[in-house]
Amino acid sequence: MELTQHSVHFTAETPSNGVLVRDFTVGEVTGALWSPAASASTRAPLVLMGHGGGNHSKSPAMAGRAERLVNGAGFHVATIDAPGHGDRPRTPHDEREITLMQQKMAAGEPVGEIVVRYNAHLAERAVPEWLATLDALQELPEIGAEGPVGYYGLNMGTAIGVPLTASEPRITAAVLGLFWYDETLAEAARRITVPIEFALQRDDEHIPLPSGLALFDAFASKQKSLHINSGSHKELPRFEADSAVRFFARHLTVDGSTA
Amino acid sequence: MELTQHSVHFTAETPSNGVLVRDFTVGEVTGALWSPAASASTRAPLVLMGHGGGNHSKSPAMAGRAERLVNGAGFHVATIDAPGHGDRPRTPHDEREITLMQQKMAAGEPVGEIVVRYNAHLAERAVPEWLATLDALQELPEIGAEGPVGYYGLNMGTAIGVPLTASEPRITAAVLGLFWYDETLAEAARRITVPIEFALQRDDEHIPLPSGLALFDAFASKQKSLHINSGSHKELPRFEADSAVRFFARHLTVDGSTA
Repeated sequence: MELTQHSVHFTAETPSNGVLVRDFTVGEVTGALWSPAASASTRAPLVLMGHGGGNHSKSPAMAGRAERLVNGAGFHVATIDAPGHGDRPRTPHDEREITLMQQKMAAGEPVGEIVVRYNAHLAERAVPEWLATLDALQELPEIGAEGPVGYYGLNMGTAIGVPLTASEPRITAAVLGLFWYDETLAEAARRITVPIEFALQRDDEHIPLPSGLALFDAFASKQKSLHINSGSHKELPRFEADSAVRFFARHLTVDGSTA
Repeated sequence: MELTQHSVHFTAETPSNGVLVRDFTVGEVTGALWSPAASASTRAPLVLMGHGGGNHSKSPAMAGRAERLVNGAGFHVATIDAPGHGDRPRTPHDEREITLMQQKMAAGEPVGEIVVRYNAHLAERAVPEWLATLDALQELPEIGAEGPVGYYGLNMGTAIGVPLTASEPRITAAVLGLFWYDETLAEAARRITVPIEFALQRDDEHIPLPSGLALFDAFASKQKSLHINSGSHKELPRFEADSAVRFFARHLTVDGSTA
């Protein structure tokens, strides 16, 4: 995307389960801002939330986690569509990589190498988009330039979130996980010193435990927690989303309070 | 201890931070029952809580965790002094093993082997005591014979809790951790199928991560979670006690509710 400073443009507004969902654009980036319906204009900490591969900014997983963060801790939550995701256009490079990934999946072959490679490419495009979005969101009075900011993203949301958190000092706490060790990603993790909560699945059919554990170990953070749950890649327990709410409440609020 | 059926005898009663602490004996076993001060006679789930080595049933760690379980979820919590702990007499065998352990600690030598051996010995004495205590507690109207029962114990509390949980079907959920893999202990873990939450410290100077991870892996439980936090053996974060409250609320109550 071009690097001109853009503002947040709200394009739709939907109340849902106590949450006001405001669709927005920042330049060509599309996303949604999730806020307490009863106090959407009240200043509160912001959690940036990145979706997984093949998903989008308003997927059920994003909506579920956003609702927990809004209703559980009174936060604002911003989700954006990654490049080539949601309604955003795919490049020929995106098409080639996605086709290759789908072929490997269909053939039952290991997908780690292609996912790591393609997600690293997406991260290079997504990190500047996140920074422009954060700049724009911080112009809103309910967020502000001085408020605490967290990042929450698993799978591709970690591939993007690690270099984002490493390069952006405004992010002071992050929940990550479900991704492979990779030297480039680990190099970024080694520059991260903010508190981290990291999730892995013990019976992950894609990510071997030693690979995920090596990525967790790479973070320079003094305070870091690894949650390993039984179950396959897609069976991350829902209570981990509640754990993330409490993690952000501990690190983004003065008294660590949740509702 | 003799296997005669004993009843609970309350010997003292102290209110503290919303919790009614009732010292008790069951035969020669000494312990404390922690209940909501405002509803101590109301039926609620029971959590059995085992202390660590060299500690006792009313140590600050036990009091802190009991208060969280009582105030956070309305549970009753029972702690008992392990054999040779608190005011309970030590045998010559206890004295020899403790002296050896202290010598190794003072010399900076690895203590895993002696701790595992001595705690396995204590577990053989402690498990029947826990069963007699549970029998007696279930005669109390506020606990009852049909109520849900959990077990919570780290360090030596895990060395005792694993064989206890393996042999006692009344225990339907357990929080354990901070202990080494050992073949005898793992054999008991392989017979446990109830939900488990297990804690390890990433920088534990006594328990190497692969050893703790191997013990976690031994549990046959379909639902199990491992929490690995940065920090040394004694630096387990306090928020793990809050996590334990939510774990027991999920598994011992109908609606998973905490206060």
